Amino acid sequence: MPDVPTKILLREDEIPTHWINLLPEIPGGALPPLHPGTMQPAGPDDLAALFPPQVIEQEASAEHEIAIPDEVREALGLWRPTPMYRARRLERAVGTRSRIYYKYEGVSPAGSHKPNSAVAQAYANQQAGITKLTTETGAGQWGSALSFAAGLFGLEVEVYMVGSSYDQKPYRRSMMRTWGAEVHRSPSDRTEAGRANADHRTGSLGIAISEAVELAAQRPDTSYSLGSVLNHVLLHQTVIGQETIAQLALVDETPDVVVASAGGGSNFAGIAFPWWREKQRRGLTTRFVATEPMACPTLTQGVYGYDFGDASGLTPLLPMHTLGHGFVPPPVHAGGLRYHGMAPLLSALVAKGEVEARAVAQNETFEAALTFARAEGIIPAPESAHAIRSALIEAEAADAAGEERVILFLLSGHGHFDLAAYDEYLAGNLENPGFSAEERDRALAELPQGAPSLA
Amino acid sequence: MPDVPTKILLREDEIPTHWINLLPEIPGGALPPLHPGTMQPAGPDDLAALFPPQVIEQEASAEHEIAIPDEVREALGLWRPTPMYRARRLERAVGTRSRIYYKYEGVSPAGSHKPNSAVAQAYANQQAGITKLTTETGAGQWGSALSFAAGLFGLEVEVYMVGSSYDQKPYRRSMMRTWGAEVHRSPSDRTEAGRANADHRTGSLGIAISEAVELAAQRPDTSYSLGSVLNHVLLHQTVIGQETIAQLALVDETPDVVVASAGGGSNFAGIAFPWWREKQRRGLTTRFVATEPMACPTLTQGVYGYDFGDASGLTPLLPMHTLGHGFVPPPVHAGGLRYHGMAPLLSALVAKGEVEARAVAQNETFEAALTFARAEGIIPAPESAHAIRSALIEAEAADAAGEERVILFLLSGHGHFDLAAYDEYLAGNLENPGFSAEERDRALAELPQGAPSLA
Repeated sequence: MPDVPTKILLREDEIPTHWINLLPEIPGGALPPLHPGTMQPAGPDDLAALFPPQVIEQEASAEHEIAIPDEVREALGLWRPTPMYRARRLERAVGTRSRIYYKYEGVSPAGSHKPNSAVAQAYANQQAGITKLTTETGAGQWGSALSFAAGLFGLEVEVYMVGSSYDQKPYRRSMMRTWGAEVHRSPSDRTEAGRANADHRTGSLGIAISEAVELAAQRPDTSYSLGSVLNHVLLHQTVIGQETIAQLALVDETPDVVVASAGGGSNFAGIAFPWWREKQRRGLTTRFVATEPMACPTLTQGVYGYDFGDASGLTPLLPMHTLGHGFVPPPVHAGGLRYHGMAPLLSALVAKGEVEARAVAQNETFEAALTFARAEGIIPAPESAHAIRSALIEAEAADAAGEERVILFLLSGHGHFDLAAYDEYLAGNLENPGFSAEERDRALAELPQGAPSLA
Repeated sequence: MPDVPTKILLREDEIPTHWINLLPEIPGGALPPLHPGTMQPAGPDDLAALFPPQVIEQEASAEHEIAIPDEVREALGLWRPTPMYRARRLERAVGTRSRIYYKYEGVSPAGSHKPNSAVAQAYANQQAGITKLTTETGAGQWGSALSFAAGLFGLEVEVYMVGSSYDQKPYRRSMMRTWGAEVHRSPSDRTEAGRANADHRTGSLGIAISEAVELAAQRPDTSYSLGSVLNHVLLHQTVIGQETIAQLALVDETPDVVVASAGGGSNFAGIAFPWWREKQRRGLTTRFVATEPMACPTLTQGVYGYDFGDASGLTPLLPMHTLGHGFVPPPVHAGGLRYHGMAPLLSALVAKGEVEARAVAQNETFEAALTFARAEGIIPAPESAHAIRSALIEAEAADAAGEERVILFLLSGHGHFDLAAYDEYLAGNLENPGFSAEERDRALAELPQGAPSLA
């Protein structure tokens, strides 16, 4: 066996005891969300109809660390700590001198990092006496995670699944029902928002959010749950990065670069935020690269400004990189990365130059996924494959510069429900859908007026 | 956190260094396979056209332990050691006083225990200068495992997939292709056996075996690989049980009963054989329960005799429990358990009273699977769910007797490709297909004549 093991494992008692909160550490201070009517900072009251008190506290907390409740740690123990791997076979396959490590979140029951936040949110709701959660789901990862987590804490779940995904991904739907959730095709006839959009047969994430939010706002026993973007979701994901700090310490390594994909920002934050704080404390030179699809290049082609979090303009205004809330990304297979905006905390770090952004094309991403699957065995989710492609770009650059880099990336989930996309790639039918700068410009022209400029 | 952790993990250097060979330890001696023409013991020469020398040696070895080659251990390190769990949430859900532990093999890239043997077989073939493997697959678990493993060792693979599965499980097919395998619908027009059976559009495991064997026998650079039944396959799976011995030692427990499902016998052998030897050495009182579907009750309703391993009578005669090689089990969702025979080593232990057998019905198996998924998170494969149902029967019996049992079962794989079956169960459409004793009697009447009686 090699002296550095392929797989670096922690014990169950090494599951982190705290979440890391970067909100009070953003250089220059983090910007608040704004109420779209008054353009004043949105406060706890603006969120009280949708979220339980614990979540609202976490969303705006000034604490640098927040203790993880025992019940949440016990639930995380069903699959955490997750393994970290030295990608020896991948290194050999591409012939790099760099050392590549990856953290794998696909071992969770739902198959991605999403349950890290889902169990925390389900617990917070149970503590508040909430008995039912509503949420939306596109490709199905978040809906699956919340269905699983809600079941653990005895809560009911209603998932509004984007119509086209509901039709195309029947097994994600079955998975949610197996865990006990109600799954409705959106637009449904169960809400005003659904009935008003009955003509949009394929649905959209915007409509599904509106349905879930409408129901939660009406019922005192029901809350709404969101799977990315907001501060509390990013917070919950920091268990990932903390585990990698312990795991790389076991083999005496420090990453030169930390790479992850970025859709709403929670998986990137999960691995990168703990390392960003570690960098400040230990004076490291680590770089950070958030990687997005060329078809939805929020960080690389968007503007930094105040915009709505949803397509219909129901949410507070968030300070973030955005392609405009009316921007509709072309249909790439990485459904989890098709979001017009980006988490405010991640956007702030990109705006300050603390985090780099990179956009990659769909076909080169699937090529990297195939190289990875054949070398390391795991078939990656298309979202996670963006991080693989980006890590290989780092390795190529290091080899070209005659350097050996230590590259750490997050493999956020497996692709067991995405094999139709692999079929299309193998058949040579996959396109590199173009980003439409014209459509972005049209969408940006509709940015809400009167919000402070961030440029 | 509880004092006994939920998840019991080993380090990578604790992957077993040896396989455990029960062949020389079977009470009264193991019976040899017979050549169907001469009724004389089949020797290495009878296997040389199909298997590489290392595999043939392992099949008949008199050694009690066989060292695992470093290259195989390194490949196993991609996912081993696998986790063992204390099923606290399941215990609470069913209200038992017993302590239930389960070993989980679904973390392998292919999602089951099958890669344990696939990597060993791929390595043995690479060492022998073989460049291509042929195999058959029904539901797709074995075909996936071999496609993954062959890729690691640079071998090509041709998989003959039973026609009905090929049509119904497109994603298992995509998974094999993602790892680089050629997948053909069986019956194909690529072999005599396929062309002769062109009228059987849905195919059968028997026809697919014949296609794979025919090609391997014709080509000197090509071998055939089998995923269960034979001694060497059971041997390769003993890493599972050895790890559980180390894992239960960490929490100071000894199992009162070890439970697994049994189709061809390799997953049962994987967990039970090391514990059976441990029982002899340490004087334990551990019981063993092999669990099969009522629709294909080989151990509980078959006879113990010499029969062909395949449906068409191409293989040597194996001393085993059998429903007759012409028996066609009704279509239950646990495709991996629909086999007329049983591994000779496991059959011998059942015949000697060392291992108990239990048959469970399809609906109660899915009910147990749902209880498990909602408590523990993991959605089990229908095959693995037989072990869950059987473990819960043990817990119920213990509670009824006022006992606390330590129950260890093998969760051999996840159900990510079996969600259509869950849909049918949730919709109340699942049947308990009846076992046809008449069909068994017809099939048993065709047992080969002239072989020694084992009854």
